[in-house]
Amino acid sequence: MTPPAAVSLRPALEAVARAVDARFDRLLDVPDDPRARLFRAMRHATIGGGKKMRALLAVAACDLFHVDRERALRVALAIEAVHSYSLVHDDLPCMDDDDLRRGKPTVHKAFDEATAVLTGDSLFALAFEVLADPLTHEDPFVRSELVLELARASGPNGMAGGQMMDLEAEGADFDLATTTRLQQLKTGALIGFACEAGAIMGKVSPGVRMRVRGYARDLGLAFQIADDLLDVEGDAETAGKALHKDAAAGKSTFVSLLGVDRARAQASMLIDQAIHHLNDFGPEADLLRAIALFAIERDH
Amino acid sequence: MTPPAAVSLRPALEAVARAVDARFDRLLDVPDDPRARLFRAMRHATIGGGKKMRALLAVAACDLFHVDRERALRVALAIEAVHSYSLVHDDLPCMDDDDLRRGKPTVHKAFDEATAVLTGDSLFALAFEVLADPLTHEDPFVRSELVLELARASGPNGMAGGQMMDLEAEGADFDLATTTRLQQLKTGALIGFACEAGAIMGKVSPGVRMRVRGYARDLGLAFQIADDLLDVEGDAETAGKALHKDAAAGKSTFVSLLGVDRARAQASMLIDQAIHHLNDFGPEADLLRAIALFAIERDH
Repeated sequence: MTPPAAVSLRPALEAVARAVDARFDRLLDVPDDPRARLFRAMRHATIGGGKKMRALLAVAACDLFHVDRERALRVALAIEAVHSYSLVHDDLPCMDDDDLRRGKPTVHKAFDEATAVLTGDSLFALAFEVLADPLTHEDPFVRSELVLELARASGPNGMAGGQMMDLEAEGADFDLATTTRLQQLKTGALIGFACEAGAIMGKVSPGVRMRVRGYARDLGLAFQIADDLLDVEGDAETAGKALHKDAAAGKSTFVSLLGVDRARAQASMLIDQAIHHLNDFGPEADLLRAIALFAIERDH
Repeated sequence: MTPPAAVSLRPALEAVARAVDARFDRLLDVPDDPRARLFRAMRHATIGGGKKMRALLAVAACDLFHVDRERALRVALAIEAVHSYSLVHDDLPCMDDDDLRRGKPTVHKAFDEATAVLTGDSLFALAFEVLADPLTHEDPFVRSELVLELARASGPNGMAGGQMMDLEAEGADFDLATTTRLQQLKTGALIGFACEAGAIMGKVSPGVRMRVRGYARDLGLAFQIADDLLDVEGDAETAGKALHKDAAAGKSTFVSLLGVDRARAQASMLIDQAIHHLNDFGPEADLLRAIALFAIERDH
């Protein structure tokens, strides 16, 4: 299924990125006290960097259910705060030891390691503060549901658990099932939350929420396969980060397990499936459809 | 004011510590997959270690407002999860570089640095997951209020901000006002949340909540002054951690700024004030009164 030409992804992505950045800028006013360094590092980690793909997903899922744009952007900001925190911690010397992120020095390079640890911790706290604030939704059930799902998606049964599996992956020869599980936790859970948050904000029926979740699950996995393909075929300058690290570390990837051709076919099949979950929705789902196609066509 | 002899603090503390440990044990079942190391480290950081003073405060504040004990223990667990996460990150080589915590090797010593980073992150997520769960309170307004206040108490305007100030304190010659602010953020905010959570769970009036907050603010500061006194006068074996580190790092402490005698007098005055905030409460506040007295009489 081809999305209507009317939906142009890049302008939508850029608009959401700008809107989220503007809100980070407002929230992270640098105080005139010894915490200034922390706030500067939080700004470095969030503003003006990254595709903000998760923010766009959250906004697109919120749009599907006619959620007020300002509120949708608060959810989007919370998700980008968690994503940024995870990158800051993953880049630490004791983790992936990366010097470059989104074309800029990583936080521990631009500042120092202790500040990087606290920057991640602070962005994580900020995400929950934003979601639990009545400005995000007047219904406290919606707010606590958002918090519950984000906590699950980011904790030991979500992103942090996936990151632990990734640390254990080195030389462990994970099979396809374990690699799939690793990626579902490490990146899939937060992508899933970005989409599901729209359904929570829109207070939709469990059946509708299930379809959004199905879309997110297939999209998340396709997104990761595409990342693995980029890691093999991509260009470090375009990607804005170091490549070929998984192969060098002896970790299983979808590409090492399936080969380039089958991995690409698998990603394409997953995207068809993701779009299929949106069949009951009309043109208001076109942005989600366009995001799905972009996931496997992007070069960074 | 002397608390009634009827309130015996140590058995209460031990009972709450056991109850919280039992609930961590249940929540942190080690999975049979590559995340096992993460869950073992989370157990190491939480179960069987520490005084669980914040848990007791939360339970005592909940008791004051007749909150169901099982629910109070869930709040207590969330607070201890945050406290433990902060210790795991603070102990990292890039932060305080401590090998010993609560008489055991620190997480990065018993496991490794990357696991320690993820252990802290995971305990932080767990705290919010527990608070946002309907099992903690059936009223979603209470749940989202708990989350909002914990997020504020632990983020850049709370604990993490205080830790940043602490990093900047080395050789900075902070004055008494800045040192007080540092400690209010670094340790006071979470102690404050432990008390305020009881008021939130009990859905009390703003006036009553203010009194509990007043108690917590004075207690938190007294607690920290007592810690500074222990750091100078204490015994590393009893404390279960390295001592004299602040002086060695050239950081201002209440003792370096006030001297031992004035620091002790200040702590004592703050405790009188803390107990004064409880004047309108009857014997159901005796445990909170006993905790206040313990705060300045403890030897660890």
